[in-house]
Amino acid sequence: MNILFIMFDQLRFDYLSCAGHPHLQTPHIDSLAARGVRFSRAYVQSPICGASRMSFYTGRYTSSHGAQWNGFPLRVGEVTLGDHLRDAGMGCWLIGKTHMRADARGMERLGLDPDSVIGARQAECGFDVWCRDDGLWAEGPDGFYDANRSPYNAYLKSRGYPGANPWADFANAGEEGGDLASGWFMANADKPANIAEEDSETPWLTGEAIRFIEQAEGPWCAHVSYIKPHWPYIVPAPYHAIYGANQVPAAVRHPSEKENPHPVLKAFMDSPVGQAFSRDEVRQKAIPAYMGLIKQCDDQMGRLFDFLERTGRMQDTMIVLTSDHGDYLGDHWMGEKDFFHEPSVKVPLIVYDPRPEADATRGTVCDALVEAIDLAPTFVAAAGGAPANHILEGRSLDPLLQGETPAGWRDFAVSEYDFSARPMTVNMGLRPEQARLFMVADKRWKFVHCESGHRPILFDMESDPDEFFDLGDSAEHRHIIERMYDRLAAWGRRSAQRVTRSDADIAAMRGKSPRKGILLGVFEAADLPPDLTARYRGPVPRR
Amino acid sequence: MNILFIMFDQLRFDYLSCAGHPHLQTPHIDSLAARGVRFSRAYVQSPICGASRMSFYTGRYTSSHGAQWNGFPLRVGEVTLGDHLRDAGMGCWLIGKTHMRADARGMERLGLDPDSVIGARQAECGFDVWCRDDGLWAEGPDGFYDANRSPYNAYLKSRGYPGANPWADFANAGEEGGDLASGWFMANADKPANIAEEDSETPWLTGEAIRFIEQAEGPWCAHVSYIKPHWPYIVPAPYHAIYGANQVPAAVRHPSEKENPHPVLKAFMDSPVGQAFSRDEVRQKAIPAYMGLIKQCDDQMGRLFDFLERTGRMQDTMIVLTSDHGDYLGDHWMGEKDFFHEPSVKVPLIVYDPRPEADATRGTVCDALVEAIDLAPTFVAAAGGAPANHILEGRSLDPLLQGETPAGWRDFAVSEYDFSARPMTVNMGLRPEQARLFMVADKRWKFVHCESGHRPILFDMESDPDEFFDLGDSAEHRHIIERMYDRLAAWGRRSAQRVTRSDADIAAMRGKSPRKGILLGVFEAADLPPDLTARYRGPVPRR
Repeated sequence: MNILFIMFDQLRFDYLSCAGHPHLQTPHIDSLAARGVRFSRAYVQSPICGASRMSFYTGRYTSSHGAQWNGFPLRVGEVTLGDHLRDAGMGCWLIGKTHMRADARGMERLGLDPDSVIGARQAECGFDVWCRDDGLWAEGPDGFYDANRSPYNAYLKSRGYPGANPWADFANAGEEGGDLASGWFMANADKPANIAEEDSETPWLTGEAIRFIEQAEGPWCAHVSYIKPHWPYIVPAPYHAIYGANQVPAAVRHPSEKENPHPVLKAFMDSPVGQAFSRDEVRQKAIPAYMGLIKQCDDQMGRLFDFLERTGRMQDTMIVLTSDHGDYLGDHWMGEKDFFHEPSVKVPLIVYDPRPEADATRGTVCDALVEAIDLAPTFVAAAGGAPANHILEGRSLDPLLQGETPAGWRDFAVSEYDFSARPMTVNMGLRPEQARLFMVADKRWKFVHCESGHRPILFDMESDPDEFFDLGDSAEHRHIIERMYDRLAAWGRRSAQRVTRSDADIAAMRGKSPRKGILLGVFEAADLPPDLTARYRGPVPRR
Repeated sequence: MNILFIMFDQLRFDYLSCAGHPHLQTPHIDSLAARGVRFSRAYVQSPICGASRMSFYTGRYTSSHGAQWNGFPLRVGEVTLGDHLRDAGMGCWLIGKTHMRADARGMERLGLDPDSVIGARQAECGFDVWCRDDGLWAEGPDGFYDANRSPYNAYLKSRGYPGANPWADFANAGEEGGDLASGWFMANADKPANIAEEDSETPWLTGEAIRFIEQAEGPWCAHVSYIKPHWPYIVPAPYHAIYGANQVPAAVRHPSEKENPHPVLKAFMDSPVGQAFSRDEVRQKAIPAYMGLIKQCDDQMGRLFDFLERTGRMQDTMIVLTSDHGDYLGDHWMGEKDFFHEPSVKVPLIVYDPRPEADATRGTVCDALVEAIDLAPTFVAAAGGAPANHILEGRSLDPLLQGETPAGWRDFAVSEYDFSARPMTVNMGLRPEQARLFMVADKRWKFVHCESGHRPILFDMESDPDEFFDLGDSAEHRHIIERMYDRLAAWGRRSAQRVTRSDADIAAMRGKSPRKGILLGVFEAADLPPDLTARYRGPVPRR
């Protein structure tokens, strides 16, 4: 079996027709859901690209792998999905984005050459690279945001797009009266991107995925990882014009959220993106473009799935479709993906498993609490390996895919957000370790602990499914908050770093040292079986 | 400045005359205390050799570095004291024991050759090796406990001691009626070891330390790490006969400890070493040998300090003397170092700092709560470096050495014990993750959380300095237990793995992405300063 691990960036869980979007039609993604399981409570380990992805790629919580923000390198030696899969005999390839930053200092300390196979895997988060393109070829007065070479820019140049950075000038800009109208400015989001649709990022990457699969041999896992529908919010024709302002869902927000808000929530609402997305004109420009980007993604899924059908790969390939986090889009007076409301921390997750064992669940929706870290063990199991549960902190989804409700499935999900690198921490007077948030969510309650010393935040998702009313200071919910703190504390004590010894190794160690001569608490030889004392019988030797 | 980092193995905090032992005289160690600071509340991060040492050598809690039991390899890439010191321009050398197990699988994954300099440092816990001897050359029907080559056995052979394992036959055995009387059997503890005193382990290693220092150039840290007074409890003449049964302190134990005990404590009391050390004949044989071993250690300290004085090194060398854990010796009906009572988890710690800044504290006792992990940052500071506080979890002792009581010094110490590899877990029915204990101690209360699901354990060290009366089920102490749980929870949320980005790195990241072209929440160019939008002005390019 192969694994096609498709990730979109910043795709909200509810911006799919199979998830109930009132206007957006995504028939191809829906068709995958019809053949597989759609998980309706899938949480990412952090609502920020880099941290979330490092959790997908290691199967570990962000405070276990430590790469808690974009550009925090994943430390050298951290075991990745690629390591686990190669141990199980499956290749693990990257086509697209990871947001990985290499631990250059750690690699130097270990003498690892980034150009060697081993060094490249360390630098690329365990993947072998078919094509890496992180999709943010932004440029400012201090230079490029991303120091890597852009294969997408190279592609555009090969297709005749001029200039040093056609990503910025064509794929992510439109035109107004003969002038460049950059996609960075949301006022331009209704313009068509200045590029042939087939040359834009999503079709280009789909083509790379198809090229990879056409030549792939042996069992493979292909991580096809799109930058879209992530900003800049601009999309080529015809997608720029499919949706209009009247198809923009109303913002999920409530005036009470701005009355006496929790200081951390207030800081996010007051941030430039929060303020921008609180403006209707911003939403009405940006969201139709966001929907158009998703529509284009869905069409490319159609193209990809057709290819898989045609080549027989649909029968021997597990297909997983998800996102690294969502997008507030003005809900809760916020933009981006700063916090733990559902539009940010919950992601679409569809798993199509071609094996007959999964027939019972095709087309169903599973509301079990699943986490991003569950994919790595699911993939290892699909590759025929035994997931290394002393390293991988998630759980294989296999039972859920096969229609079982396993006893003892998790009853709460955890997500973390380290916002220490954000400028708002300066005004808030927070040291880095204080700028950390922990979410604990079960099917009813969502709790957030703030390491800043502010009181916790609590939402009752049953009586308040829109998460408008923060109960963190409600005396009558004190017992709920205590229960959530107990869960967070238990989670904090988890055994996350004993990565060099498995449970089986430990079981095999028990009681073995006497047979290697370690005799503890023994008064005399007669206390022990003769084979353990044979070494110590006989005449004393002389020098 | 140089650093001489002396570690004994299994030396109790109170088996020194400077710490009040009623019979044992340790004038040389006392003389170090008279020139430095003796810390009276120094806790190790785990009361077991390997785990404790990995915390000393990384400056990190055991659940941060993951090597939580003897023989659990320290994972490849973990930053060590040696890495920190070399970054600060100081060499870091090993003379003696570490209990390090190399992460062979991790090294193989990274292609590290154990014979290269980098590979050897990974395999040897960051040290450059002058001489590594872990001191347990035990042998049983399944072979050697330790697969390494023993330099001490090589030494003995060079001195004419015959046989394959003179460590066992001479250094750790006596004679009875012409027959071998192994030191593994405590009935033999009163016999002199069958070896010339100057060839026994402690003088041999002291000689190696002197040889190292004689040739050392540039600033160095030398970890001189003795196996003694660790078992086997047997010592050469004249030390075997210095102390007798009438100089054995009474066991610190109480009948109430055996009445309805906590199940975890009961398991330790019921273990073979617990049962053995509950017998007076065992204590009366083993403890005089243990005291003789310490007396020999002290005499070797005299030899070493004389050498340092003679060569001028006493003026430019920080000397730290400590142990990896204690020894129950029958206290609390226990043997070995299984749990968190003071004789097990508290260690001697003496720091002599030759710099004039430390003159104010010479000969004083400091009762601040210090932890084993404080040494690594202390050493980095002594080497002239800035301790990497995003990796090192301890705090430099410098202010305490200089007589300051820094505001915000820790108000509780944490120690951990993962006993999952012990056979008792089988009868207790514990999975590995359940066989973990966490101690939180302040100056009054010592609290132990059991991951097994048993209730916590609590001692009031003020009203019950001997820790006889477990208050873990006392309703009137519920608020103390809650406070300790809050501390443990806060500790569990610590930022332990963000090792690739320092606080300074984070401060430097804040607010920088707009200058690299990431423009978030921007509606139109006019919202931004012109230098950030310059890239996007002018005519649209054409393909």
